[in-house]
Amino acid sequence: MYKINENFQKLPGSYLFSTIGKKVAAYQQANPDKEIIRLGIGDVTQPLAPAIIEALHKAVDEMGNAATFRGYAPDLGYEFLRSAIANTDYKARGCDISADEIFVSDGAKSDSANIQELFAADSRIAVTDPVYPVYVDSNVMAGRTGEYDPKTEMWSNVIYMPSTAENGFVPELPKEVPDMIYLCLPNNPTGTTLTKDELQVWVDYANKNGSVIIFDAAYEAYISEADVPHSIYECEGAKTCAIELRSFSKNAGFTGVRLGFTVVPKELKCGDVSLNAMWARRHGTKFNGAPYIVQRAGEAVYSEAGKAQLKDQVAYYMNNAKVIKDGLAEAGYTVYGGVNAPYIWLKTPENMNSWEFFDFLLENANVVGTPGSGFGPSGEGYFRLTAFGNYENTVKALERIKAL
Amino acid sequence: MYKINENFQKLPGSYLFSTIGKKVAAYQQANPDKEIIRLGIGDVTQPLAPAIIEALHKAVDEMGNAATFRGYAPDLGYEFLRSAIANTDYKARGCDISADEIFVSDGAKSDSANIQELFAADSRIAVTDPVYPVYVDSNVMAGRTGEYDPKTEMWSNVIYMPSTAENGFVPELPKEVPDMIYLCLPNNPTGTTLTKDELQVWVDYANKNGSVIIFDAAYEAYISEADVPHSIYECEGAKTCAIELRSFSKNAGFTGVRLGFTVVPKELKCGDVSLNAMWARRHGTKFNGAPYIVQRAGEAVYSEAGKAQLKDQVAYYMNNAKVIKDGLAEAGYTVYGGVNAPYIWLKTPENMNSWEFFDFLLENANVVGTPGSGFGPSGEGYFRLTAFGNYENTVKALERIKAL
Repeated sequence: MYKINENFQKLPGSYLFSTIGKKVAAYQQANPDKEIIRLGIGDVTQPLAPAIIEALHKAVDEMGNAATFRGYAPDLGYEFLRSAIANTDYKARGCDISADEIFVSDGAKSDSANIQELFAADSRIAVTDPVYPVYVDSNVMAGRTGEYDPKTEMWSNVIYMPSTAENGFVPELPKEVPDMIYLCLPNNPTGTTLTKDELQVWVDYANKNGSVIIFDAAYEAYISEADVPHSIYECEGAKTCAIELRSFSKNAGFTGVRLGFTVVPKELKCGDVSLNAMWARRHGTKFNGAPYIVQRAGEAVYSEAGKAQLKDQVAYYMNNAKVIKDGLAEAGYTVYGGVNAPYIWLKTPENMNSWEFFDFLLENANVVGTPGSGFGPSGEGYFRLTAFGNYENTVKALERIKAL
Repeated sequence: MYKINENFQKLPGSYLFSTIGKKVAAYQQANPDKEIIRLGIGDVTQPLAPAIIEALHKAVDEMGNAATFRGYAPDLGYEFLRSAIANTDYKARGCDISADEIFVSDGAKSDSANIQELFAADSRIAVTDPVYPVYVDSNVMAGRTGEYDPKTEMWSNVIYMPSTAENGFVPELPKEVPDMIYLCLPNNPTGTTLTKDELQVWVDYANKNGSVIIFDAAYEAYISEADVPHSIYECEGAKTCAIELRSFSKNAGFTGVRLGFTVVPKELKCGDVSLNAMWARRHGTKFNGAPYIVQRAGEAVYSEAGKAQLKDQVAYYMNNAKVIKDGLAEAGYTVYGGVNAPYIWLKTPENMNSWEFFDFLLENANVVGTPGSGFGPSGEGYFRLTAFGNYENTVKALERIKAL
């Protein structure tokens, strides 16, 4: 009889956002008259910008015409998109990243889950705590994380780097050297980030100790402060120790469009082996390119019209962030984040644990957020709200919270 | 120092179609005046059908409007598409498959590469030989295939099931019992297939011996004979031993649109563990849904207008298949396939090996095909041509071949 991958059975419960979805659906079914406001999952609400819609329609028309129809895309992405990315996101910021170091994909979630395939089965990972669940869960499935302790909610073979109010959300360097270090900056879920000098410390650590950094920069478009790096390649030496993940979900509202990319510098080598070549092989074997029409939409993100429209869209969400942050502060909550990121991270009141506060908020304000503990043990006692709602609902949600 | 996944280093050469692409590009650069006709990679050439274009435009408009904008799709696919698939591809054919057994993805290549993650690391796979390279390569990357012998071009821990003219392209049941059996029917690359009775033998074998069948039905739309099954679930007992992969690439021209699905029946269990639940967890953790606009395009495939237009498109390609098959026979070649599949599999003339014939055809007829040996050792001495070119080019290619 065939055998399954037993690592799947080690995963406790279901994926965080599936659990939230089920809880909300059950509440809504029991209370059909309640108007629920969702500030939980980091899903956007604003429609795609006009420049993107225009590019999509144009590409759809091309697909309907034999002369301009496109079949299989290049595995690694169309040159027009890879060049736009290299020029705008990297060269224009002084980072020497070229088009052939950029791998276009169907989104950063896939890439952040798949990137671990490049590393040895017995690699040890380090994650900030709290953390986006995909980094740990994908390594659980690959059998790297050891055993789960339901009491501490920790894996025996994962190095946790607490990131809490106590250390100002600046995690300490790990004492035991990990093989892979996952960093998400600006951070999901805390909404906090590191300055360039603070990030340089991690790059130096990785180069000195032979670790590789998986740097998730999905929220870089929300950075408002000058000393915060938009890419890890702004730090010296990052090209020999870091892979960067990027998303179009949050800067352009592509959560339902699906587009992302990963940067694997050619200088990133393990001995003689190029990780750039490995990731190219992985793409070529296991992926068949992002849709042509979606890659054209991605290109429009870098057009002059697209850039202007998306600047407004980001500003719209960051205004929501301010509404949430100010409103919560006014209501007496202790709040973090929301300055360089679309997430507000709050301390739960009256020693409620994160899921207690989830239920409290759902039942009393009909507002959905995300329990901090769902992101890791150090998230316990915290709660995440997102700025991705629409303005009217965000204002209404805060009025309800203030009235509690 | 971190370590890489050494299994990647075991892969010989690069992905087959990347190698072909590079060879053709080099020839074209050296001979810029030559008009090359590509009947190699199985990429379609006809534009998307009008019903699909209409659905895409409509969905794009929805994405540009706040009231109809869609963010993250359900991980497993939109209900409208899963239901259309269940009803049309399964229930209408007498297969009792329901919407919650269907998992929508970005294509069958991803699914066929990822499905092995559900199984134990020491699982043994069996493949027909020749075979679509992704099945083996994805298992190489996962460390299941043992060592590669460059002389035989075989992996020590893979069970090869030759499928050649000698056995009428009906492979023998494996003597050693495999954990996973990959079957692609109608077959890529041979263009041949099995009857329902012949497939039933495999289902019975799998149920009796505790193997799981990964059944790739990407080419089912090309079936013209009545006794050939469109789905493995037409065979009795398949729901307890088989996973089915489907693609929109070939029946609807979605190679550059990216959409596919996998069927994992709820009855498919390893002991108490549901593979349906495992695949749902894998989707939820490592994938973020196919694009909304693409899923609407998929829905249009099942509309009355879509079905009629795509029937014509399939007939167009199958007419090409006839042109190739008849033309080659006329030129004295021994040919197979092309009746229930868009592939023609020919015996190379004058004892040329497959790559020699590739070069011969590229240089003398400027026609690109795929060397049979690229699909496995038993493909040596064979060559694949596809019916996915346009009619005019297909006719021209055959004239050139006949004139050799």
